[in-house]
Amino acid sequence: MSVLIKNISYLDLEGEKIVDNADVFIEGNKIKKIGENLNLDVDEIINGEDKLLTPGFVNAHTHLGMSYFRNYADDLALMDWLENKIWPIEAKLNREDIYWSSMLSIIENIKSGVTTFCDMYYEMDRVGDAAIESGIRGVLTRGMTDVDGKGEEKLKEFDDLYKNYQNKCGGRIKVVPAPHAIYTCSTEFLKEIAKRARENYDSLIHIHLSETITEVENSKKEYGMTPIEYVNTLGLLDSQVIAAHCVHITDEEIELVKNKKFYPVYNPSSNLKLASGFTPVDKMLKNNMKLAMGTDGDSSNNNQDFVEEMHLGGIVNKAVTMKEKAVPAIEILKMATVNGAETLGFEKLGLIKEDYLADLAIFDLESNSFTPRNNLISALVYSANSHDVESVICDGKFIMRDRELVNVDEKKVREIVNKRWEDIKRR
Amino acid sequence: MSVLIKNISYLDLEGEKIVDNADVFIEGNKIKKIGENLNLDVDEIINGEDKLLTPGFVNAHTHLGMSYFRNYADDLALMDWLENKIWPIEAKLNREDIYWSSMLSIIENIKSGVTTFCDMYYEMDRVGDAAIESGIRGVLTRGMTDVDGKGEEKLKEFDDLYKNYQNKCGGRIKVVPAPHAIYTCSTEFLKEIAKRARENYDSLIHIHLSETITEVENSKKEYGMTPIEYVNTLGLLDSQVIAAHCVHITDEEIELVKNKKFYPVYNPSSNLKLASGFTPVDKMLKNNMKLAMGTDGDSSNNNQDFVEEMHLGGIVNKAVTMKEKAVPAIEILKMATVNGAETLGFEKLGLIKEDYLADLAIFDLESNSFTPRNNLISALVYSANSHDVESVICDGKFIMRDRELVNVDEKKVREIVNKRWEDIKRR
Repeated sequence: MSVLIKNISYLDLEGEKIVDNADVFIEGNKIKKIGENLNLDVDEIINGEDKLLTPGFVNAHTHLGMSYFRNYADDLALMDWLENKIWPIEAKLNREDIYWSSMLSIIENIKSGVTTFCDMYYEMDRVGDAAIESGIRGVLTRGMTDVDGKGEEKLKEFDDLYKNYQNKCGGRIKVVPAPHAIYTCSTEFLKEIAKRARENYDSLIHIHLSETITEVENSKKEYGMTPIEYVNTLGLLDSQVIAAHCVHITDEEIELVKNKKFYPVYNPSSNLKLASGFTPVDKMLKNNMKLAMGTDGDSSNNNQDFVEEMHLGGIVNKAVTMKEKAVPAIEILKMATVNGAETLGFEKLGLIKEDYLADLAIFDLESNSFTPRNNLISALVYSANSHDVESVICDGKFIMRDRELVNVDEKKVREIVNKRWEDIKRR
Repeated sequence: MSVLIKNISYLDLEGEKIVDNADVFIEGNKIKKIGENLNLDVDEIINGEDKLLTPGFVNAHTHLGMSYFRNYADDLALMDWLENKIWPIEAKLNREDIYWSSMLSIIENIKSGVTTFCDMYYEMDRVGDAAIESGIRGVLTRGMTDVDGKGEEKLKEFDDLYKNYQNKCGGRIKVVPAPHAIYTCSTEFLKEIAKRARENYDSLIHIHLSETITEVENSKKEYGMTPIEYVNTLGLLDSQVIAAHCVHITDEEIELVKNKKFYPVYNPSSNLKLASGFTPVDKMLKNNMKLAMGTDGDSSNNNQDFVEEMHLGGIVNKAVTMKEKAVPAIEILKMATVNGAETLGFEKLGLIKEDYLADLAIFDLESNSFTPRNNLISALVYSANSHDVESVICDGKFIMRDRELVNVDEKKVREIVNKRWEDIKRR
């Protein structure tokens, strides 16, 4: 398939500017040419006037399957919430439940311009199927724990997942091991996963790190080290790390990781709502670290609206630092796109640039949020909302057109999720 | 006109619960009856299945006319932003410019469920006209300063505004004096306005108070008192005060105002984006103070999305206090409705209750944000977005139906705002 988008404005992240009146030629799954007045024989021509083209967003940390738990238990203390509400009901989910709740989350992601997710959950083959069917790019990371004594089983399951799904759909699907956290995995288990990541897989690991003060305090008590220092001693930081949260990363830890392939994933809504704290985004950026962004799961966010996440992440750091200039809009957009792509180990993804993968979001500029048309970089972060996302292209194909999902029946998914949830609660 | 909404779920703020399968009868501008299986002869019957009815939201502090400045100057230090960007261009606006930018902001407000605004700007008669034409309830507060030596002129202008607009449209329009701030008004001017508010008007005053540390430090230096202590000595607190911001309100000030008719208006987006700081919402609520919420103007927010404002205001306080239970969703909803109505001096407004004014928002529950249907109080604050607002009723009349404004041509307003802005920049 080939598409030519004519006369569109696009976000040039390397130039940190908006380029107007551009023609963007997409062939196969790539951006083949960007120029002016391109005359090419293509399958489809799109009129890009009054539209803004951005790289598709990368939601680098989420739990897609948790959409059942949206608004199920809020305004509760963390352990009460987990132990008495989330874990007991989560234990009742089956494979098909997870397929449908993941599909609902994927719909929300696509509708807010996301073209790549990194999901940590279980029954990940069914999450992979949902990704394949919807057309989105997906990193499947099996959340593994061994506190239940079933570590071996999960390693075996992960091995199968990797064999069956790694690089499926021409590389659109990736598989990465995910030890859940230092408080749900034993030292030996973490060491084993670190070893396998390097030797059997692709030297990528996804883990929750330094999310809460409790986690840090317990780590110091138990291991005499902070969480990131501790996982370093286990060999985890010899792989590239997708490090969800890092709310309580210390100055010493920043020194330790800043020259490693260590990518914190910032989840502002979740960190605020769970009272985890304020992630030191400004400080990490000043140390030349690259950060990604994520929505986290619906049980803590409580939605998958990536545009809202950018807005929130953009403004909260200004109050944290008491500096109006802290974490400017352009940095948020880099985190949300090209840095997210690098975090997840993708090459040539996250920029609107020739030879890059054609993962793109098209915003409608004829909306209130973009009126009048001032700085469109500011607009994307500070005034836009997800309804301004009109169409989404992933891997060269439209997966949403005029706010309608191309491959998924949204209404049907909502009906099934509602019905299954009633059933889950009765189990 | 009479309307009967059948089988709807509604937000009962006094009961702190959702009531299902209710019939709500609206006659004239009031909610006349709430019950089950009402059989009444009405002009229109609405099917309320799969919908959620809430009180219309009260945006208790905004600057509607500033929508031109959305995304015009961001990520700048406050004084640089004001002195070199906002003030010079603001000086070029004429009456008709302000009418159209206010209309754009009113559209955004209505589309996010707002039925009442409290606007502080100038050329307020034209803002009043926009409110009257769009059908929204509006509190017109002329922002007055005398640093330019033109205090008398503004007091005269306010007098005319009050004569011509107070209680227009059966009380839908109100007029309230608004000394801009302690740093733009002289002591004598503040005293004079405080006196007139009590003697000539309705004992209501709208003012920016304790927004930034600079304001507090300068007040201490100049008057030997904090801002709220200072305005108390001038008689301002003898009227009911709509106190925008109060980011840096002190414990002593809380003691001073907590038994007065003093209503802080919380503007989370603006306070974060301008790096003003974190408003101590939790502390004020614990002192039994009633707070309202506002979006502030588009130059600092940068939108008028009240649903997003509730989300942000709801979650940020949990991280500020490091308590998951701080400022629960129900408190945010009260701030956004009934407390806002009381703040602005309205009676019988902001609740879904018999004999109350029929200002209502209808949310579509067949949306991703509300799937599955768990706690709808949580959903309104934590997962909903403004696109879930399907219809809006103000003063008993539909002002938005199926996401289409009833009285305003939204596309035309955007076109005119874009055109005028190009012209303003050339002046």
